[in-house]
Amino acid sequence: MGNILNNLKSLTKKSKSKMVLCVVDGLGGIPHPDFGGKTELEAARTPNLDALAQKSTLGLMVPVQYGVTPGSGPGHIALFGYDPEELVIGRGVLEALGVGMELQEGDIAARANFATKNAEGIITDRRAGRISTEECQRLVQRLQESIQTIEDVEILLKAGKEHRFVMVLRGKDLGDNLQDTDPQKEGLPPYEPKGFDTLSEKTAYIVKRFLEKAEGIIESEPRANAILLRGFSKSPTLEKFPERYGVRALAIAIYPMYKGIARLFGFDTPDVEGDLRNEIELLKSQWQEYDFFFLHYKDTDKAGEDGDFSRKVECIEYFDSLLPEILSLSPDVLVITGDHSTPSLLRGHSWHPSPVLLYSPYGGVPTGTRFTERECASGYLGHFPAKALMSLMLASALRLGKFGA
Amino acid sequence: MGNILNNLKSLTKKSKSKMVLCVVDGLGGIPHPDFGGKTELEAARTPNLDALAQKSTLGLMVPVQYGVTPGSGPGHIALFGYDPEELVIGRGVLEALGVGMELQEGDIAARANFATKNAEGIITDRRAGRISTEECQRLVQRLQESIQTIEDVEILLKAGKEHRFVMVLRGKDLGDNLQDTDPQKEGLPPYEPKGFDTLSEKTAYIVKRFLEKAEGIIESEPRANAILLRGFSKSPTLEKFPERYGVRALAIAIYPMYKGIARLFGFDTPDVEGDLRNEIELLKSQWQEYDFFFLHYKDTDKAGEDGDFSRKVECIEYFDSLLPEILSLSPDVLVITGDHSTPSLLRGHSWHPSPVLLYSPYGGVPTGTRFTERECASGYLGHFPAKALMSLMLASALRLGKFGA
Repeated sequence: MGNILNNLKSLTKKSKSKMVLCVVDGLGGIPHPDFGGKTELEAARTPNLDALAQKSTLGLMVPVQYGVTPGSGPGHIALFGYDPEELVIGRGVLEALGVGMELQEGDIAARANFATKNAEGIITDRRAGRISTEECQRLVQRLQESIQTIEDVEILLKAGKEHRFVMVLRGKDLGDNLQDTDPQKEGLPPYEPKGFDTLSEKTAYIVKRFLEKAEGIIESEPRANAILLRGFSKSPTLEKFPERYGVRALAIAIYPMYKGIARLFGFDTPDVEGDLRNEIELLKSQWQEYDFFFLHYKDTDKAGEDGDFSRKVECIEYFDSLLPEILSLSPDVLVITGDHSTPSLLRGHSWHPSPVLLYSPYGGVPTGTRFTERECASGYLGHFPAKALMSLMLASALRLGKFGA
Repeated sequence: MGNILNNLKSLTKKSKSKMVLCVVDGLGGIPHPDFGGKTELEAARTPNLDALAQKSTLGLMVPVQYGVTPGSGPGHIALFGYDPEELVIGRGVLEALGVGMELQEGDIAARANFATKNAEGIITDRRAGRISTEECQRLVQRLQESIQTIEDVEILLKAGKEHRFVMVLRGKDLGDNLQDTDPQKEGLPPYEPKGFDTLSEKTAYIVKRFLEKAEGIIESEPRANAILLRGFSKSPTLEKFPERYGVRALAIAIYPMYKGIARLFGFDTPDVEGDLRNEIELLKSQWQEYDFFFLHYKDTDKAGEDGDFSRKVECIEYFDSLLPEILSLSPDVLVITGDHSTPSLLRGHSWHPSPVLLYSPYGGVPTGTRFTERECASGYLGHFPAKALMSLMLASALRLGKFGA
């Protein structure tokens, strides 16, 4: 991949065209022997997608690299046109986004566990007996009320599920190159906070002070009397999506993590509850206000992760049933794809390329009769890196100028 | 793209095989709703291309990057096997080639306009009232007669259309990192020539002296009494095509710009006038003298740029009618493709991949019945960067040795 895809800003033009990127999470599949050797897309009845496919260009997108299964972070980084091998969103940051925390550039986030330690300071249960989410919330609230800053650094805490919570440090010049304090097994004491460079030493010092204060507060707890931290990572500084592409960008996602990733890239991310129907209502109500819409539909991925072929088929059919609502807005460019494949046969994310459908009067040559992996495999768009999708969308929206004379 | 494509010289072998690269400028298209949803290639009756397609391998070539629309410079740089994102031919150099100037390595070229300035030195008309081409030629001749050198730098001038001309500086150690003197709008004085590094400061000094002399000569002109310069750029130093590939290389092109680009790469570039028929006559007459023939056919691109679907179809049919003449020479490898697409629906260059046909007994597996974008989309050659075409041609000509043991 050459440099020009990292510098599309130099080519962008003004336009009134509207683009919609529908990410049907984990859309792609592989043939399932228990279901006639069909993929979920092949098994689904999708009259609307099929009709659209006949007017669209098709292809297969490699999310990160051939054979490489991406997490949701790299999957979306690539869809947004950034290099998923260069730009890394750390574990702590993803976790913070996943519980709905709003991060600012330079924030340091870490995954935290409540744990149990004995009188000698040895960890006897890394998960504090899996305390309930309610108990976790109560403890986190108590900690947050007592600890808001340490020196000039803000401390932000938010409870997750069971024994899990997230700690964010907000301050100047904090490094994220820290050793985990979580020893990863029982029978050991936690590691000391330790920074591996000057800026991270400051972070380690703040973390150490935080742990002293916090463990003082919870020391009489029967189970949750210790805290383990891991995955320290910094909220990345990056060229924001709206600047990079010259668009007003809206993200429509129900799950906090996807909203959070989009927020990192500078999308507006209003809250939306319910299901895809509600997401599409939001899309309609915001149609005049934005140029680029990222619409995230999660349920296909969940069904795939559960290994539930039939439910994934139903989710695809549900998406199909609502597609006319999106088309009624007459987007200039509409893309339907996934951030990665989640074949129900594999019960998880996979490395398989994502089927992609690009609908635009200027997209190129339609070749298919249905929107399936098989038809995408011989499509006009060929096999291409997901990172290149944005330039294809912008080009089809007539928003990119000529390169070179 | 790995490095070996930049180092094919290490693999080239001697051979008597002959290769022809037919660049049908702007060949690729997209479906046009007013013409039955066909592309120009699909609408054209092309019995000779169809018969050839059935014996050839097909594919789609990405000129520079997905979604990126190339100018003619990057389009040809890629076809010649060079990296269009690394090797840049600047505006001034392209303009010089376009008016037929012969550049040498290190020459600095700039686009020039005659303009009108008032007594205060303010530009009142950036185009000098669009003086006629004849008047421009007269003025340029007058300037050139009076100014041949400034210090040790040769000054070369050539008129273009209307108020436009080209200035070339030929001398040692001249930089091209200069500010334009053209303020790009009226009501301002021209900018001073200014170099942004040591070598460019020397250029700026020469330019300043040139402008003083030249504007002295034309000061009594009623309209063309000032000169604006922009797009300073240096004629690039590059590994020449014949050396890189071990071939004697001939370019056959009617338009000066394409001949000029080919000359930069070290092709022989005899003059040819008329049309494709005359180009093919030249091809025949030079058949024994060269190994590699670059044949450029412009008219398809012009028709596409005019938005004239039917004329583009006719141009393709005309090319088809003359194809047997080329085949009668029995080339070992014949490629037919474009430097970029020019869909008449878009009235200009576009980002769409170029259909490519490679005919050779060793080319691979034929898959199509016609030479169309649709058949190329599922062709044996797949989707590949235009930069890789040269290695496919050389390989099919049995001119590349083994890589590694």
